[in-house]
Amino acid sequence: MKIVFAWIVVFAVLIGGLGGVVSGAALSDATKACLECHSIIHPGIVEDWQKSRHSQMSPSDALGVKGPGLKVSSRDIPDGLKGKAVGCAECHTMRPKEHADAFDHNDHKVYTAVSPGDCRVCHSEEAEQYSMNLMSHAYRNLAENKLYGLLEHSILGAVGRDKAEMENAPASRVTKAETCYHCHGTVLKVTGKEKRAYDDYGDMEFPRIEGWPNQGTGRVNLDGTIGSCAACHTRHRFSIETARKPYTCKQCHVGPDVPAFKVYEASKHGNIFSSHGRDWEFRKVPWTVGKDFSAPTCAACHVSLLVSSGGELIAKRSHRMNDRLPWRIFGLIYAHPHPKNPDTTIIRNKDGAPLPSDFAGGFAADYLIDVKEMDSRRKGIQTICRACHGSSTVAGQWERFESSIKETNAKTLTATQILSGIWAAGYAKGPSEGGSPFDEEPERIWADSWVIYANTIRFASAMGFGGDYGVFADGRYELNKTIVRLHQRGRP
Amino acid sequence: MKIVFAWIVVFAVLIGGLGGVVSGAALSDATKACLECHSIIHPGIVEDWQKSRHSQMSPSDALGVKGPGLKVSSRDIPDGLKGKAVGCAECHTMRPKEHADAFDHNDHKVYTAVSPGDCRVCHSEEAEQYSMNLMSHAYRNLAENKLYGLLEHSILGAVGRDKAEMENAPASRVTKAETCYHCHGTVLKVTGKEKRAYDDYGDMEFPRIEGWPNQGTGRVNLDGTIGSCAACHTRHRFSIETARKPYTCKQCHVGPDVPAFKVYEASKHGNIFSSHGRDWEFRKVPWTVGKDFSAPTCAACHVSLLVSSGGELIAKRSHRMNDRLPWRIFGLIYAHPHPKNPDTTIIRNKDGAPLPSDFAGGFAADYLIDVKEMDSRRKGIQTICRACHGSSTVAGQWERFESSIKETNAKTLTATQILSGIWAAGYAKGPSEGGSPFDEEPERIWADSWVIYANTIRFASAMGFGGDYGVFADGRYELNKTIVRLHQRGRP
Amino acid sequence: MKIVFAWIVVFAVLIGGLGGVVSGAALSDATKACLECHSIIHPGIVEDWQKSRHSQMSPSDALGVKGPGLKVSSRDIPDGLKGKAVGCAECHTMRPKEHADAFDHNDHKVYTAVSPGDCRVCHSEEAEQYSMNLMSHAYRNLAENKLYGLLEHSILGAVGRDKAEMENAPASRVTKAETCYHCHGTVLKVTGKEKRAYDDYGDMEFPRIEGWPNQGTGRVNLDGTIGSCAACHTRHRFSIETARKPYTCKQCHVGPDVPAFKVYEASKHGNIFSSHGRDWEFRKVPWTVGKDFSAPTCAACHVSLLVSSGGELIAKRSHRMNDRLPWRIFGLIYAHPHPKNPDTTIIRNKDGAPLPSDFAGGFAADYLIDVKEMDSRRKGIQTICRACHGSSTVAGQWERFESSIKETNAKTLTATQILSGIWAAGYAKGPSEGGSPFDEEPERIWADSWVIYANTIRFASAMGFGGDYGVFADGRYELNKTIVRLHQRGRP
Repeated sequence: MKIVFAWIVVFAVLIGGLGGVVSGAALSDATKACLECHSIIHPGIVEDWQKSRHSQMSPSDALGVKGPGLKVSSRDIPDGLKGKAVGCAECHTMRPKEHADAFDHNDHKVYTAVSPGDCRVCHSEEAEQYSMNLMSHAYRNLAENKLYGLLEHSILGAVGRDKAEMENAPASRVTKAETCYHCHGTVLKVTGKEKRAYDDYGDMEFPRIEGWPNQGTGRVNLDGTIGSCAACHTRHRFSIETARKPYTCKQCHVGPDVPAFKVYEASKHGNIFSSHGRDWEFRKVPWTVGKDFSAPTCAACHVSLLVSSGGELIAKRSHRMNDRLPWRIFGLIYAHPHPKNPDTTIIRNKDGAPLPSDFAGGFAADYLIDVKEMDSRRKGIQTICRACHGSSTVAGQWERFESSIKETNAKTLTATQILSGIWAAGYAKGPSEGGSPFDEEPERIWADSWVIYANTIRFASAMGFGGDYGVFADGRYELNKTIVRLHQRGRP
Repeated sequence: MKIVFAWIVVFAVLIGGLGGVVSGAALSDATKACLECHSIIHPGIVEDWQKSRHSQMSPSDALGVKGPGLKVSSRDIPDGLKGKAVGCAECHTMRPKEHADAFDHNDHKVYTAVSPGDCRVCHSEEAEQYSMNLMSHAYRNLAENKLYGLLEHSILGAVGRDKAEMENAPASRVTKAETCYHCHGTVLKVTGKEKRAYDDYGDMEFPRIEGWPNQGTGRVNLDGTIGSCAACHTRHRFSIETARKPYTCKQCHVGPDVPAFKVYEASKHGNIFSSHGRDWEFRKVPWTVGKDFSAPTCAACHVSLLVSSGGELIAKRSHRMNDRLPWRIFGLIYAHPHPKNPDTTIIRNKDGAPLPSDFAGGFAADYLIDVKEMDSRRKGIQTICRACHGSSTVAGQWERFESSIKETNAKTLTATQILSGIWAAGYAKGPSEGGSPFDEEPERIWADSWVIYANTIRFASAMGFGGDYGVFADGRYELNKTIVRLHQRGRP
Repeated sequence: MKIVFAWIVVFAVLIGGLGGVVSGAALSDATKACLECHSIIHPGIVEDWQKSRHSQMSPSDALGVKGPGLKVSSRDIPDGLKGKAVGCAECHTMRPKEHADAFDHNDHKVYTAVSPGDCRVCHSEEAEQYSMNLMSHAYRNLAENKLYGLLEHSILGAVGRDKAEMENAPASRVTKAETCYHCHGTVLKVTGKEKRAYDDYGDMEFPRIEGWPNQGTGRVNLDGTIGSCAACHTRHRFSIETARKPYTCKQCHVGPDVPAFKVYEASKHGNIFSSHGRDWEFRKVPWTVGKDFSAPTCAACHVSLLVSSGGELIAKRSHRMNDRLPWRIFGLIYAHPHPKNPDTTIIRNKDGAPLPSDFAGGFAADYLIDVKEMDSRRKGIQTICRACHGSSTVAGQWERFESSIKETNAKTLTATQILSGIWAAGYAKGPSEGGSPFDEEPERIWADSWVIYANTIRFASAMGFGGDYGVFADGRYELNKTIVRLHQRGRP
């Protein structure tokens, strides 16, 4: 079968198919000038780009694709860009006035950190969707929430001792950049210039950029935009294959706080991907269910443009990744309906705290999507399920998912009540006495219960169809044990 | 080399080889009728089936295979089935009288949940073997053992508080279905009928099936059979390649309670599979050691029909997966000889409890295989080892494995003695005072020592040839630490 | 693209390219004699060898390769070996006088355990480098360090109870062989002879070898050499592809004490490898950055001979794996500059203990590389980074790495000070009172802080470019929590 398939592919290539892959778009003179040195200095990155579609097609070629295979969504691409391949100069020198990091470099104004503001010149629709994605706001949503700041401080802070008591100093900027903000995104800031010596080229001057390197999803860029397309569309090949494989999502979604990848890998879907994925077609647009792939990857359910083998639309492409997600199941004390606005710093619960739920689990409903919107999003994701599964499977799976949300929220409430008792008894210093809710031992046991275990259980329900991540692998076995441990701390 | 190999494959295909893969068996009219709608409603699943051997061969074609490549073991396949490809109707409408979930659906009596009772029409020998497999009894063996029930309750129960004391309510049916019974199998039960609306087809009536979806290995089916072939032979492609790759086993055997996959992946065998498996032949029957594959996967040692390149038999195919396993190394307090009967609910230890060992580690010998049978099973598995390894390697490995069993059983005994002391001292309420042995904090520490750490150590010895899972990764580092923690809880 | 690439490969093969892969070197008569029986007794291993380069080329063929593709570094290969393929007899019968395990076997003096002393006959340069590698000294460095012995004992010892107190018996030789020394290497020792029965061949006599099987990196061999090439160059195919893929390193570097593989897999580099590695060329020597592979594996940065597509040298091949590593970041209490000598048993800190740092974190500087050497090694590794990354990325990454070293060393110091207080208060018995620093509960919490968490954080910085292993996945979340737990144990 594979051989036959290979021959079909050969034939398709010969007659010019494969969605318009052609090689030979001319390079701009500026890009040629870049390559002259950089193919020697950074050969790896240049080779990688040469394997990209960008190096082989011009925007004009791309705009010539008819139908849903069209990937370039902008209609106002400047004429000067249209006819040449998308090379070094096209991305790194196009908008120097907007970029605070633009610097003089061999007669060009070059900037290091390409942003969604640059990508949107050709991919405006995707950039627009992504700007509405929670992920593009990941920096501010974390950094400008005081309560999250206390949690961050308890995790990253420089633990020390002042006499017999613990005393935490704030984490350094550098520590922050390689921890929470590695995924959430750093703030890029030009702090000066510096000369660096190159063997064959002598001294050259470059801007010093605080927060660099970083490809976090909510990076604050030097042209004022937020986000980084390269978080998923890995430089410099920008292959849709990379973005569609689950390893990309894994970069940020593998830890025990958000074990999406681990759960996926242990699910039936993940089994099929691991066993057969090597034979799938990851580059076709649109992506045909059953034909191009036999089980969903992350992208299939949350991002990609899907059709049936008959050509019927199953799901629209979206870069606002909660378009088909009613519930937000991780990162916060209780699972809750998704926020309406990707800027979550505006949320206030009934106690005035910047959280989507209050301490007793009640939702800050004004800031969250309503039942109607939740229902519509549920239908969106279930349409994808139903491309392979019967309606009773889909309904049964959803019942379990919502049951797990209810169950874990109830258990988190129990843990929270125990912690309140611990505060009241004076075994730890809670917020009402000016303490952080995250820094003492019982508080850290409490945090485990929801940061890790309740989250894991919900992921297992949501996308793993159960399995060990709902039980022994950071699941209910650990959650119930942790609550018993916390209970023990609260006894006289 | 790879290229040369590719050409050999091309040639083999051209002359009609590859173990009888032919395409073009006719579809039955009933299956054609199914496909008319379902290829539109569930295109993914239909495409997947179209890649299967079932869609391309009739039972008659399959019966024509001579020698050990024969995969269809039944000799009494009804004539009506023999001549057509194995399609929707062949599996979902063949035995409506036996299936409590059969319902009227466009002039057909259709049922959703296909069972081993259906698969055995063509694959009787495998179904028979599987019925003797512990895994097919996984539902009852868990659900009908009172002591396991207490453990299950401590893990899944709805932890709450009654005044200052913990008070657990039983887990819901839905929670059970997506946790323990996701792998062990649910009980399928028709609880009524319901109408569902389809855009293009109007309202249709379906049975409501409690416990669905589920592909657990011990599922209790609506035709009275137990088990699910689809647990490993993933629907609807039913590719032997899937079943032979370790990702299938991983679905249930990855968590810290049964870390077979993790240990395998970190072993030399797993390394070779990960590095070179993409070049192996996973579909050939019989499976030739060294030629088709260079290192065993789970299936190679525990299930598949293996031969040497000279055609000599190395191992028979078996779907009773402990055929070559003398020791049962996980899931219970102490490792012990395998039970004689796959129904383990009948076991009673010397104290009358339904466990294969007593609290002090003594075996309930009447219910377990004897030394002679253990020796025969050991020889069975070692024959496979010796297809690649010399006798001194095999003997050395086995010495370590049995040493680990002895060592971990001894450490578990120490932990159990400490717990007995804790009960005696009144720090927790043990079974002799009517308490559960699993619900309080010291009891949960004790459970960690064997559910997780002793198990992991034994898996590392059994199939990993040691490595980090025997030490830091849930191994001895954690086991000894846990026993010291427990000891600390038992001090005045 | 892939198809085009495939055709290029076909063409390259046809014109005799691919670095000299030819098939057809003649086998020696001795090897033919081995194969006569062993292809029947151990067909798997023989098939595996038949896929090797060793089975297809003679040393003379290999010596004919011109330029950097040359893999055989010895210039004094005995004439008798030069003309034949490297088969069973060439490795297992060449140096019988040196091997204490040589025995009479069908008119040949055969030995089981092939050593670096055997491999160096053709690969002298690599053997020499490896003898300077810390890994080749892994047995003695662990076994002959008294302080490590106490840690080993706390992990492996047979935990028991004498009345109410814990009492640990030493671990057995067998337990040691399958735990720490599985990776560090065992001592091989002939302890006698034994007869074994073979069905078709009758009784045969073999030496009994204590410590066998083992392929640990620091194995002490029966010809007096140390190390095992087969640890990474897996028998009997000895494929450079295996050694260059990260799964080989994973065998020993996956656990929480040294999570290199897990961090790599979750990094951008690991993502690219997982997504695209199947299309890379893993066998070419030298290895061309960007062309043969698009992201580094472990071997790319630490071992392999790398060139640019223009043919310029990027990194020399080295089997002394810290050649490009200034810092030693795992396995010890504090991160420190690499030892000068691969034999670390000679190190003494200012307190006379065999550790590269003292209890307060001060370095035993006389035994460690100096700032100049550290700088030179840093430049070595950064040259590889710069094959793909700009200088500001490389500088930013390095700043974070060294910041993490400083941060984790400071946190470890805090934990150590708390433990000192615990000892002083009499809550546990420290070394000054003759106690082990590793066996009691607070000591084990302290050990977690550096054996697991500080290590993991440093790996995340070193090669993962951050991510979850620096935060929730055994990172700072756990480290800070652990220090708070330890602090709690030290309160009155």
